[in-house]
Amino acid sequence: MGNCIVPYCDGPKSTNIKWTLPAVCFVWQCAMIILFGAFVRYNWEVDAHWPESKAERNITSDIENDFYFRYPSFQDVHVMIFVGFGFLMTFLKRYSFGAVGFNFLVASFGIQWALLMQGWFHHIDPNDGMIKIGVENIINADFCVASCLIAYGAVLGKVSPVQLMVMTLFGVTLFAVEEYIILNLIHAKDAGGSMVIHTFGAYFGLAISWVLYRPNLKDSSKLNGSVYHSDVFAMIGTLFLWMFWPSFNSAICLHGDGQHRAAINTYLSLAATVLTTFAISSLFEKHGKLDMVHIQNSTLAGGVAVGTAAEFMLMPYGSLIVGFCCGIISTLGYIYLSPFMEKKLKIQDTCGIHNLHGMPGVIGGIVGAISAAGATEFVYGKEGLIGTFDFTGEFQHRTPASQGGFQAAGMCVSICFGIGGGILVGLILRMPLWGDPTDDNCFDDVVYWEVPDEEETADPVLQYTNHTVANNHVEVTETRFTVEQH
Amino acid sequence: MGNCIVPYCDGPKSTNIKWTLPAVCFVWQCAMIILFGAFVRYNWEVDAHWPESKAERNITSDIENDFYFRYPSFQDVHVMIFVGFGFLMTFLKRYSFGAVGFNFLVASFGIQWALLMQGWFHHIDPNDGMIKIGVENIINADFCVASCLIAYGAVLGKVSPVQLMVMTLFGVTLFAVEEYIILNLIHAKDAGGSMVIHTFGAYFGLAISWVLYRPNLKDSSKLNGSVYHSDVFAMIGTLFLWMFWPSFNSAICLHGDGQHRAAINTYLSLAATVLTTFAISSLFEKHGKLDMVHIQNSTLAGGVAVGTAAEFMLMPYGSLIVGFCCGIISTLGYIYLSPFMEKKLKIQDTCGIHNLHGMPGVIGGIVGAISAAGATEFVYGKEGLIGTFDFTGEFQHRTPASQGGFQAAGMCVSICFGIGGGILVGLILRMPLWGDPTDDNCFDDVVYWEVPDEEETADPVLQYTNHTVANNHVEVTETRFTVEQH
Amino acid sequence: MGNCIVPYCDGPKSTNIKWTLPAVCFVWQCAMIILFGAFVRYNWEVDAHWPESKAERNITSDIENDFYFRYPSFQDVHVMIFVGFGFLMTFLKRYSFGAVGFNFLVASFGIQWALLMQGWFHHIDPNDGMIKIGVENIINADFCVASCLIAYGAVLGKVSPVQLMVMTLFGVTLFAVEEYIILNLIHAKDAGGSMVIHTFGAYFGLAISWVLYRPNLKDSSKLNGSVYHSDVFAMIGTLFLWMFWPSFNSAICLHGDGQHRAAINTYLSLAATVLTTFAISSLFEKHGKLDMVHIQNSTLAGGVAVGTAAEFMLMPYGSLIVGFCCGIISTLGYIYLSPFMEKKLKIQDTCGIHNLHGMPGVIGGIVGAISAAGATEFVYGKEGLIGTFDFTGEFQHRTPASQGGFQAAGMCVSICFGIGGGILVGLILRMPLWGDPTDDNCFDDVVYWEVPDEEETADPVLQYTNHTVANNHVEVTETRFTVEQH
Repeated sequence: MGNCIVPYCDGPKSTNIKWTLPAVCFVWQCAMIILFGAFVRYNWEVDAHWPESKAERNITSDIENDFYFRYPSFQDVHVMIFVGFGFLMTFLKRYSFGAVGFNFLVASFGIQWALLMQGWFHHIDPNDGMIKIGVENIINADFCVASCLIAYGAVLGKVSPVQLMVMTLFGVTLFAVEEYIILNLIHAKDAGGSMVIHTFGAYFGLAISWVLYRPNLKDSSKLNGSVYHSDVFAMIGTLFLWMFWPSFNSAICLHGDGQHRAAINTYLSLAATVLTTFAISSLFEKHGKLDMVHIQNSTLAGGVAVGTAAEFMLMPYGSLIVGFCCGIISTLGYIYLSPFMEKKLKIQDTCGIHNLHGMPGVIGGIVGAISAAGATEFVYGKEGLIGTFDFTGEFQHRTPASQGGFQAAGMCVSICFGIGGGILVGLILRMPLWGDPTDDNCFDDVVYWEVPDEEETADPVLQYTNHTVANNHVEVTETRFTVEQH
Repeated sequence: MGNCIVPYCDGPKSTNIKWTLPAVCFVWQCAMIILFGAFVRYNWEVDAHWPESKAERNITSDIENDFYFRYPSFQDVHVMIFVGFGFLMTFLKRYSFGAVGFNFLVASFGIQWALLMQGWFHHIDPNDGMIKIGVENIINADFCVASCLIAYGAVLGKVSPVQLMVMTLFGVTLFAVEEYIILNLIHAKDAGGSMVIHTFGAYFGLAISWVLYRPNLKDSSKLNGSVYHSDVFAMIGTLFLWMFWPSFNSAICLHGDGQHRAAINTYLSLAATVLTTFAISSLFEKHGKLDMVHIQNSTLAGGVAVGTAAEFMLMPYGSLIVGFCCGIISTLGYIYLSPFMEKKLKIQDTCGIHNLHGMPGVIGGIVGAISAAGATEFVYGKEGLIGTFDFTGEFQHRTPASQGGFQAAGMCVSICFGIGGGILVGLILRMPLWGDPTDDNCFDDVVYWEVPDEEETADPVLQYTNHTVANNHVEVTETRFTVEQH
Repeated sequence: MGNCIVPYCDGPKSTNIKWTLPAVCFVWQCAMIILFGAFVRYNWEVDAHWPESKAERNITSDIENDFYFRYPSFQDVHVMIFVGFGFLMTFLKRYSFGAVGFNFLVASFGIQWALLMQGWFHHIDPNDGMIKIGVENIINADFCVASCLIAYGAVLGKVSPVQLMVMTLFGVTLFAVEEYIILNLIHAKDAGGSMVIHTFGAYFGLAISWVLYRPNLKDSSKLNGSVYHSDVFAMIGTLFLWMFWPSFNSAICLHGDGQHRAAINTYLSLAATVLTTFAISSLFEKHGKLDMVHIQNSTLAGGVAVGTAAEFMLMPYGSLIVGFCCGIISTLGYIYLSPFMEKKLKIQDTCGIHNLHGMPGVIGGIVGAISAAGATEFVYGKEGLIGTFDFTGEFQHRTPASQGGFQAAGMCVSICFGIGGGILVGLILRMPLWGDPTDDNCFDDVVYWEVPDEEETADPVLQYTNHTVANNHVEVTETRFTVEQH
């Protein structure tokens, strides 16, 4: 937000979070317990009355409990949220604790709040006014949190954990409203969340980063980069995201063909993305060398872009085309667009979420709108068409063409919510309460973590090296003195 | 056991395991083959006679094979045992090979022995006297091994692999007896093993560590700590344990609602634990900085504590409350109790298993007893109450209240077996046969592993640093000489 | 191929892949899109006509969609291909990017080409001439790629990504033909691919490595070894392969008992392998110290060797015996056979795939032949015997004994295809077009990757160490100068 809004409240900063972080964690966790006590119960597939419910509904086997349809996918999604996002962000040389640790904290809070927010909008039992939860709810909670973790990628290394908690509180709230508008009011379909999760999350994070613009960051920080091992750690995140993306896009699809189709479309799209990412990375870098940043991020763009249409009859070649294009666009984004955005638009996007989630998310929304508009009864079958697009109840007279228009409308809603909400939340985060780091302290774990000081031995030569690794200036000087004594 | 039992057999030590380790591995593996040949066969869901068994039992579809109910959960548990426990212990700066490698060895032996021991107690087919195994058995074998790996956490870095094998042999045996008493004789319920696995494993390990007390360890070893990268490796273990804990607690629950409920309760409990762990860690450390030890360990306490009651109608808010308390207690344990135990009680607990498994396990037992005692037919339904607590056969006249009492009795049995068995096994491990390291050699992989010597180049300056990393004192001196020549 | 074939086309080398890699990626990906457009459609369990197909086939529940039988196993296999193989090869000190990254590229291309090649041979729908794909196809595509990744293990660090793409193109093609001959024409059973995947892949890779023999490699490269952290990274690969191997061997087995039995046999075999690997490693190394190379690789041999027979009634003790033998043979292979092969046979096998996949694969084929020949109706049941060996249609008159012979024939076919195909592909790879590294550049990521230069600070002492880590000779000299200034 650099030069267009007066920095109304940037007082002297303290990065001490000794009181704020515990306070936020305790108060909000207590609030969760109270709200869960007042509002949340098990649904009929989780409740111990299952034997009776089963009899009432003529269900013959326990295997038809929704748990067995969705739990394996849930676990894959869970891995994506905690290991995938967490490790993807460990690429910075001295911010691995923050990447994995704050991701862990924020996601753990977010899933609880998401269960409530999404529950109020979607899962109130009219009989008793309670939110009834089951495996589908915890998948949706993980999905909701994903949008906040995407936003975290834009501000990685530049915010305090307290700011992240605040961001998640508002992010989840905005997400639930936006999701309700898109999925229920507009009745757009978005199984893998190209619009609802990725587009919203990306523009939400970018808007926050714009408001929190730090003009002097580039000069002051040498830590905004990777080392050899941190790049390998980040590949753990990349690969678990990449491998489990078919589960992400299929987790809440229709039982049977819906889940099956979404998984296969995503599998194919992601495979194509990898090839074009490698191609563009080699083509545009000097000497044709590959850049780890592209491999870690752009290879995932195909999964984002096929999210909305994964459940549709996109056809195998359609999935490949989507993946093909996204690998190119995302990698070119890292090469040309990110530097432009930082210089001209004053948006500092640490992980390049605009390239990984923003643009591919928008493409995903467009692909969804086109493929919905082009759906025919010949391709889907009569029952399949109704089932896939849920043309039932008040929406039974929709045609595929009009559905395409509503899909596009959903896309716009998610962008607006992302940008608008991001600016709002960004302004809240500029308040000098949250213990955010100074420009000099960005991308450095020592601000919020006890970093091991690596004193392995009393031998001065050993100390010397180890201190170097620990990047501790004061003590390095001291040991340099020791070396001089030789 | 420091100063209360005369060290009756502490002769001069050799850490050479060239003969003992291969001998133990070969002999025991041969014994396994013979015993499996004599006693172990496939159960009816694994045997090729399945088409006939299916017809006999009026099973209409292959999907009702227990494999499809439990195999995804089994794989998650398997990851927890090998990657979860293995990597959680890689936090030490120079003991990553030992952490992952010995965990691998011990678990691989333990699961075989557990299949036999648990089989003899629970799965003898009365028709032919054979142990019949299927997917539930291999889950239970993994569970059994978990208790030994928990115990390994207490003695990490201070024992030889031969000692670990001996410890596992006895640990699995004790576990099987204790499990039989608690689950079959007392008929307590313990789906996630708060009592049977965690409490037993923790006190078993602590008692061994007490008997093997090394009074001079603190002064002699500088290696009992982490470095930056090893803490990131340990987070891999933490996260895979955390993410898959819902599968751990639900893996052997009742089909349908039982598995579903256990997974959701665990999911919620773990989320709450993360928040209180971060809060306490920040609140009690200087400058409010977070400590990786807490994040790596205490965040898991909620999963331990909800183990027994996971299958019960604990309610979502109940799970959150359990997680809330355990995050606090476990983190405070690391801050206050562990130093106290080391100084006053002479218990050196490398990984702090008392805080992660001991106390939360006991809490889990208590939560289980209370929630069992409070169960009503209104909440569970008639059939649900009988199913959940298995009030059938000789136990058909039990009431929830009496079940609560039996749950508490089970808790006591697990503690007694843990402490008693641990002292016994500890005494065996003190025999000077097993090649355990001297105090100077603790927490160092070079004792049992070929550690790469990292000589990348002949350049003295390079050598200098690399030797430092390899922690090779002799050659470092030599290269320091080189540096002095400048 | 060292001294027996004149190096007909070894001109001066350029490692610049700025044009060749992008060209290969783009052209082949475009070809994939066109071929998928022309040939590939969803099968009836993926297609939106599922509600109608279900009614036609009297399927009562969505849970009987093949997706729910195989998708959890597919995800495990997927993890093995991308994280398992990728991280297993990160053990080299400066080739982690190449190990994980090229594995990622090659596998992503390979799965697409495999869907086509395997589809043409096995899954053409006679009604419309289209390949119809579903979850079983994507598992098979992952399997097919596994054989190419095994081959990559032999040439790791010595080839360019373009060569790997060429190798994969031909490897997948050869695989599909070989698989068709073994599984369809010979009608051998090979659920876990001991013959089809492992034996073929290993000899394919070894033959390529023989043709590409580099006589001066040993002297010139100091990078062909591990460092401490890279060995820990490699253990991630080892463990994910080890844990998910039961899913690998059971993924495409018969529904019900077939999958169940394959998983349990593999679980047991792998457990036994770990013990004998540790035993041999300790017994044959000086001072009884364990070697990480053995632990990382030989512990997996039991999974390879039980592949063919996993679905058979091998019995639990039979699985243990297979694992027992393979741990010994594989570890001894690393100790004695690999050096012999490099010196005498001129085969440089970077990862020791002959010990991990070659010999265990052949053993697996033999075990499969013997256990098939010994099958009886008493053990399998009438229906079970027919189902397990698919004695239907034109094969309905086969006996177990003759099946054993055909299994052995299948073994021979896979070896011949591996060696023959490998020599052919090796000769193609020797053409001076592909940008392969010089002997000096082998095992070094800087050839094909932008490696972070690790300049964290302007402090000379810090620079000094960091440059050292980056292994940058020029700047190290410069900083040594700085040190001398003290």
